[in-house]
Amino acid sequence: MADPLVIGEYLIHRLYEYGVRHVFGVPGDYVLTFFDRLHRSKIRVINTCDEQGAGFAADAYARLRGLGAVCVTYCVGGLKLANTTAEAFAERSPVVVISGAPGTNEREKNPLLHHRVKDFDTQLKVYEQLTVASTVLNDPETAFREIDRVLGAAMKFKRPVYIELPRDRVTAEGLAGHSFVKPSEKSDPNVLNEALQEAVKMINAARQPAVIAGIELHRFGLQKLFLEFIEKANLPVVSTLLSKSVIAELHPLYMGVYEGAMGCEAVRKYVETSDCLVLLGAPMSDVDLGIFTARIDPALSVYVTSEKTSIRFHNFENVFLEDFIRGLISSGVTRRRPAEIPHPEMPPQFHAVAGRKMTVARLFQKLNSFLEDNTVVIADPGDAMFGGADLVIHGSAEFLAPAYYTSLGFSVPASLGAQLADPDIRPLVLVGDGAFQMTGMELGTIARFGLNPIVIILNNRGYGTERPMKDGPFNDIPFWKFSRLPEVLGAGLGFEIRTEDELENTLNVCRDAKEFCILDVLIDSQDISPALKRFTETLAKRVR
Amino acid sequence: MADPLVIGEYLIHRLYEYGVRHVFGVPGDYVLTFFDRLHRSKIRVINTCDEQGAGFAADAYARLRGLGAVCVTYCVGGLKLANTTAEAFAERSPVVVISGAPGTNEREKNPLLHHRVKDFDTQLKVYEQLTVASTVLNDPETAFREIDRVLGAAMKFKRPVYIELPRDRVTAEGLAGHSFVKPSEKSDPNVLNEALQEAVKMINAARQPAVIAGIELHRFGLQKLFLEFIEKANLPVVSTLLSKSVIAELHPLYMGVYEGAMGCEAVRKYVETSDCLVLLGAPMSDVDLGIFTARIDPALSVYVTSEKTSIRFHNFENVFLEDFIRGLISSGVTRRRPAEIPHPEMPPQFHAVAGRKMTVARLFQKLNSFLEDNTVVIADPGDAMFGGADLVIHGSAEFLAPAYYTSLGFSVPASLGAQLADPDIRPLVLVGDGAFQMTGMELGTIARFGLNPIVIILNNRGYGTERPMKDGPFNDIPFWKFSRLPEVLGAGLGFEIRTEDELENTLNVCRDAKEFCILDVLIDSQDISPALKRFTETLAKRVR
Repeated sequence: MADPLVIGEYLIHRLYEYGVRHVFGVPGDYVLTFFDRLHRSKIRVINTCDEQGAGFAADAYARLRGLGAVCVTYCVGGLKLANTTAEAFAERSPVVVISGAPGTNEREKNPLLHHRVKDFDTQLKVYEQLTVASTVLNDPETAFREIDRVLGAAMKFKRPVYIELPRDRVTAEGLAGHSFVKPSEKSDPNVLNEALQEAVKMINAARQPAVIAGIELHRFGLQKLFLEFIEKANLPVVSTLLSKSVIAELHPLYMGVYEGAMGCEAVRKYVETSDCLVLLGAPMSDVDLGIFTARIDPALSVYVTSEKTSIRFHNFENVFLEDFIRGLISSGVTRRRPAEIPHPEMPPQFHAVAGRKMTVARLFQKLNSFLEDNTVVIADPGDAMFGGADLVIHGSAEFLAPAYYTSLGFSVPASLGAQLADPDIRPLVLVGDGAFQMTGMELGTIARFGLNPIVIILNNRGYGTERPMKDGPFNDIPFWKFSRLPEVLGAGLGFEIRTEDELENTLNVCRDAKEFCILDVLIDSQDISPALKRFTETLAKRVR
Repeated sequence: MADPLVIGEYLIHRLYEYGVRHVFGVPGDYVLTFFDRLHRSKIRVINTCDEQGAGFAADAYARLRGLGAVCVTYCVGGLKLANTTAEAFAERSPVVVISGAPGTNEREKNPLLHHRVKDFDTQLKVYEQLTVASTVLNDPETAFREIDRVLGAAMKFKRPVYIELPRDRVTAEGLAGHSFVKPSEKSDPNVLNEALQEAVKMINAARQPAVIAGIELHRFGLQKLFLEFIEKANLPVVSTLLSKSVIAELHPLYMGVYEGAMGCEAVRKYVETSDCLVLLGAPMSDVDLGIFTARIDPALSVYVTSEKTSIRFHNFENVFLEDFIRGLISSGVTRRRPAEIPHPEMPPQFHAVAGRKMTVARLFQKLNSFLEDNTVVIADPGDAMFGGADLVIHGSAEFLAPAYYTSLGFSVPASLGAQLADPDIRPLVLVGDGAFQMTGMELGTIARFGLNPIVIILNNRGYGTERPMKDGPFNDIPFWKFSRLPEVLGAGLGFEIRTEDELENTLNVCRDAKEFCILDVLIDSQDISPALKRFTETLAKRVR
């Protein structure tokens, strides 16, 4: 089929070709024409309550499908997405932010059009700080090429991009005869070859090599290739908190999540006594590094991400992660005999004690046995995420969390994006009461589109992560009866959970529910998971 | 009392001296130390559900008190405020955005600290686009001076500013011996004199002069001075939509809201046949200008705002609005005899017809009679705002709405800010169902702090402003039972209103209620006010 000739249609066509089937957003007059076009296309429009919800949903969608999109109006819509776009940037999620704008024909004499801030390019300047590529489609001559360039950058870097579409350009014709060429980038063969030779030599010479599997393996779709490498060479693997579930956690070569002194001691010891660490697609943040309690020696490391390749203390330019892993497979890494390695500790079988008050530790024990192959665990920062790190994700299940950027409010709208990205999954949302109060009303959107996540609220009446650092009434939040929300929304099932048997019985109901379920799990305000306790003790040293 | 020596304390002290008694926000680890200091100060910390709510609340607070402040953590908090700060910029509201940040001592070797986006100055660069002044307090030698400079700019320009406070600088000592000098700026006397002489000559020579009273009279606290001028000269006055209520609407010299062809015909005619228009503090936007249906002839205009002074086609530099108005009072503008002028039409006395279905028109008729002297009407964009423009605001009541920037979701959190800014007022919130779904849950915060706004939801199940322009399912929003929210929040009174007698009876209950009240007024999805109908017909011509 020939590419469409009209700018708005061309953009829709390219998004569709890249796999986008849903666009999240809120309409407004500067973007109405484009919404109408989207509505008439093969892409489905998903209206959220607030733009922030659309942004988080698109981020989760992008993580699972390889590209996501959010469409909003000028400034009053676009600027509400600054935070979710920053999250997508920080955590390598390719989200296309599409913003309407005043028509180019409305800008003569520089009028004070509604929604305008300083200048007509204020929003563009903001997005230049938050994306890898941005464009304003005001010139029909270059619009098609600009769309190709900017979407290509999102795919190449797995980071967000920004496209501003003045409303009189939606139906304007672009340059005739434009032809789309899929961008392709290959490593420099000489550089790649030298890097591989040195890496293979280091790995083969090592007594106890280990691999850190990072988030980019997930984002760049390299999980199968990665498995091929480690299974061929029989090398043990850890993930980071951000990349948790990048490899199935019951895989015989998987040791656990490495997070310095905050994580499992056996995993920490194995990694830190390794004499050759291969970090693949793993940019390391302070949260990943257990607030810098990790001890990774660069002198013993091979470090390859989408942005940087280093072996020991020298760098290589123009080496692509995928090429590097392919090279490792074919470049003669010696197959090892199976080593004695740690494995994730399976929590004890959970037997509910009737009438026994819920605790965080027991909640996660129960949830661990509740996971199925199609579960995607989506965790909000806080104990939901840190406690959730101890869940053992098996089969093809996934764990999604903003473990580096750690923005509250991600999980509920993310479950909307996740279940639309793949209707076969069942999201299990782990969220604190504070984060839920930010964006939880997107359950209304979830109901509207007939989805059925299970939402577990860890309700400790405050910001539990902050209390151990410095407490005060500013860490308290008001007590809401979350289980009554279905009465407001006219959909869903709500439950208040105080005891272990209530939890067990309710989860049995939820398993088969076709609607969303909210479980308001009431826990003591001082009760935190062992993982969070270790985390905040380290962090508290930085808060005077 | 001597100024405090520690940077965090100095900032708190200066805010207090400028009249700030409440700071809105959400804590996070990078700002916990400062939250703790705020909590121990004379300023009260107001935790909102989401940062967006804090931003809107601080904006309303700033509009009523002359300065507002919002305090959040780095990036995940700060970037959620991009939109509310843009609104404050566009509508001249002096909001201080205070953001925590990683300590300067944590930044060695450029680590991937949590919440970080591209670089440590990414958030600063975003805020440079959205504020009149910004600073990062990383240098104790300059911190006090920087605080003075940035807060001074907020006061001078009545626009938002940005202050980033690295967490290790909260308790660091600033430069000893610093002394605060209140900034003062005066007009250039020669320029002012020439401008005044020309203006007075034009006004005195005119057959039918008229004054457009703009929003800056409100922001710069010039309402009394302005009244002195028009009463001395006996000049008739209009407001704009953004400046509605800048003068009491029952004042004998007040004609109504001027908004081109969209407004009252008699007002339009009087203004557009005037042979001398004096625009004081009235930057004119497309919404104010009735989407450019207004006909204001620059050849007949005297135009003075905080940023620009023009008479006919020439400009004057260094003229301050306050000095100009003072000059008009003392420079011999001839007192006129009372002219025959139009006045706002008082809606007919409302008599509820039992069982008669609610309409938008009748709702506003009833509300008009419900206004009291201490009512502040706070309207969200949409029919809440356009229909609300026909309310006659009397006594010392006020009308607050983002009439230029028109960001949805303003009104509910704004009522939080407004009632804390002045505990003697009673907010009457007019909000559409779409806007309420964005930020309405801040009612939880309103309940927490014991406030009692009356919230009227114009529930037409969609984006009513957009339907007449281009309709589709993207303008529909899910139907929530808003009246059940008190059951979730554990506070407040909720009502579903279908008929005129239900409205009347319920408002009688609300008048004396000590808690917040939600009135979910169910109106037909196609029912819009006459004002909105005129507005969207004009706007629709720009949406193809």
